[in-house]
Amino acid sequence: MDFQTQAVAARRAAIELATLSRAAKDKALHSMADALAAAEPRLLEANAVDVEAARAAGTPESIVDRLTLTPARIAGMVQGLRDLAALPDPVGDVVRGWKLPNGVSVRQVRVPFGVIGIIYEARPNVTADAAGICLKSGNASLLRGSSSALNSNRVTVQALREGLEAVGVTPDAVNLVEGGRDVTGELMRARGLVDVLIPRGGAGLIQAVVDGSTVPVIETGTGNCHVYVDASADVEQAVAILLNAKTQRPSVCNAAETLLVHRDIADQFLPAALAALRDNGVTVHGDPATAAYADDVVPAGPGEYDAEYLTLDLAAKVVDSIDDALEHIREHTTGHSETIVTGSRKASERFVAEVDAAAVLVNASSRFVDGGEFGFGAEIGISTQKLHARGPMGLTEMTSSKYVVEGEGQVRA
Amino acid sequence: MDFQTQAVAARRAAIELATLSRAAKDKALHSMADALAAAEPRLLEANAVDVEAARAAGTPESIVDRLTLTPARIAGMVQGLRDLAALPDPVGDVVRGWKLPNGVSVRQVRVPFGVIGIIYEARPNVTADAAGICLKSGNASLLRGSSSALNSNRVTVQALREGLEAVGVTPDAVNLVEGGRDVTGELMRARGLVDVLIPRGGAGLIQAVVDGSTVPVIETGTGNCHVYVDASADVEQAVAILLNAKTQRPSVCNAAETLLVHRDIADQFLPAALAALRDNGVTVHGDPATAAYADDVVPAGPGEYDAEYLTLDLAAKVVDSIDDALEHIREHTTGHSETIVTGSRKASERFVAEVDAAAVLVNASSRFVDGGEFGFGAEIGISTQKLHARGPMGLTEMTSSKYVVEGEGQVRA
Repeated sequence: MDFQTQAVAARRAAIELATLSRAAKDKALHSMADALAAAEPRLLEANAVDVEAARAAGTPESIVDRLTLTPARIAGMVQGLRDLAALPDPVGDVVRGWKLPNGVSVRQVRVPFGVIGIIYEARPNVTADAAGICLKSGNASLLRGSSSALNSNRVTVQALREGLEAVGVTPDAVNLVEGGRDVTGELMRARGLVDVLIPRGGAGLIQAVVDGSTVPVIETGTGNCHVYVDASADVEQAVAILLNAKTQRPSVCNAAETLLVHRDIADQFLPAALAALRDNGVTVHGDPATAAYADDVVPAGPGEYDAEYLTLDLAAKVVDSIDDALEHIREHTTGHSETIVTGSRKASERFVAEVDAAAVLVNASSRFVDGGEFGFGAEIGISTQKLHARGPMGLTEMTSSKYVVEGEGQVRA
Repeated sequence: MDFQTQAVAARRAAIELATLSRAAKDKALHSMADALAAAEPRLLEANAVDVEAARAAGTPESIVDRLTLTPARIAGMVQGLRDLAALPDPVGDVVRGWKLPNGVSVRQVRVPFGVIGIIYEARPNVTADAAGICLKSGNASLLRGSSSALNSNRVTVQALREGLEAVGVTPDAVNLVEGGRDVTGELMRARGLVDVLIPRGGAGLIQAVVDGSTVPVIETGTGNCHVYVDASADVEQAVAILLNAKTQRPSVCNAAETLLVHRDIADQFLPAALAALRDNGVTVHGDPATAAYADDVVPAGPGEYDAEYLTLDLAAKVVDSIDDALEHIREHTTGHSETIVTGSRKASERFVAEVDAAAVLVNASSRFVDGGEFGFGAEIGISTQKLHARGPMGLTEMTSSKYVVEGEGQVRA
């Protein structure tokens, strides 16, 4: 099927989805889960073909790992769909409402976007996850996965569509967009047919979608997250927070990438911090002031304060003041999550007010900036843009709103 | 000053504006108002130059009228700034907040976008209006007006900047972007320096900004607004609403452009409606079924159901059912404001649920879809897109949010 036909079908499906009750959507999610569970043998087979091709093409093992499905991972995808069914439905929520002086009533009500395009990399679990989140929020999805996961995605989407059909919901609610690069271009320029695009993946993918799209994009995040240890920080607390933010899961966007240390606490903090980082396998790339505290600090190269390592590497720098820290962050932030560790109210207030990011943390690990940790139940990504949604995006962020204006014949004077 | 330098200056100014108190911003608005009032003689002189040049270039009189400033219009601009000072400040509002199970506190707080670009046509009053709305919401503005209003805009912006300086606020909070078409392109692609672009003007301007921008755009609206008169409508009410929506101010985006009439009420409604429209100078462009009710109905040409007339013209069509009406609206809506006049709960419920637009009205004139009428106090435009803001945009819609996460050393397990 060509993209245009598919997008028009998704648009039609969106009309049906917009008025489905929560009960009908939850039933559909369970049916999708059942169908996906039943498809496990087919899915494992298809995935093995993808994995073999990726290995043959010399794909790095970390990417092959993301591409690989196991019975446990498929069970996770199935459970993810069931978990969505247990979450509240944002559609129909009244955001606010009031009466005009003439008695006309105005309500702002949450409604689905309509059709959402998801462009993502070789992680087949995203297929079920994104399709489920879109369905629960009343949106039809156009799923544009990586060609290297095509066989896995085909079986997954086929199963999800069978699940929808089994309960009388149009299968065009979930669509896999196939074809060459041209088709991605068509998707990105399908303004009017597609309401919003969400890229999920690395910085390169996101930049390409931002540059090439006329459809509105919700940018999800690269995170060059800073931990600033203020002069008044509790040293033990600061070490614990830094260690957690850097090492608890280094490959994710809310992990710490740069450490800034106030000069006045460097003597107390850095020896303890560098030892703890070393013990946990972290390589520190520091300025000369940091390097003075340990022999194994690698000199930070040019541009390294802009790096999103996503590995057990950490850039580090000693700063003269909170002003210097704020200025450094201003220059290098990707607007994701920025942390201060401090005992000073004045310092935390300035940091919270002046740092321009989706999340600003005081004395807590940036690893908490996550839809799951925030209690959203589901997360489509973490937005680092300022329009529409900023920070972790749950089901609520997958909706728009409309004003419902009701009167008894009132006209404007 | 070149655009890049100006945008960087605006970015710096935004840092200052983000932490200004409401009192400081209100003082600045009054100071801007004072300076603008004092500049009246200079402004009238400069405007006369613009108006003369426009006339000499054969500009249509309706556009010359929009370009022309009078003492009364300048007084309106001045008062607009003072009115903004009286409105609540959305910055700092807590949207929601909760505690994580481990005691970490999370608050979602409204913050300014940062730098807002406004691209608009030859209406010099927009310069003061947009600058004021941006300032009140804590944003720096890059104002890109029409070259035909350049002299007026220069004097206006100079006065506003003087007003800012007089109270110690950086004048770079308000900036006039000058130069050729290339500069508009630079503004539209200044992602990272400019946080959001808002085009204000006709469909052509908006399309050009949407197509050419990498900076996120809030699309403001063209309105092909429909009035659907259902079989069960109160005829007198329907005529009053249609007349108000069409004629109370035909040149604006929330005015009615197309009438749809259920076949079962055509005999009662159309003779009365067509007579009332005629009495008010409206030309009706109808299908044959409508034309059967009056001699002066002009046949609706191809594409006329997509026209945003903005004049005393109205397209009209008789439909067989509410399904036909919904299908017609689906095909031709610009997603602005759509109205049903009906006595039936079932019909109004279907219309409200199924019509995909910023505002859906039941038994009320679409002229109420307006920031002023909604009680927002100020309005930057009416968004017809689904991302971020939909419908009338007041000060709240000129903000983003950030999460403030505070703990006592908590880390993720």
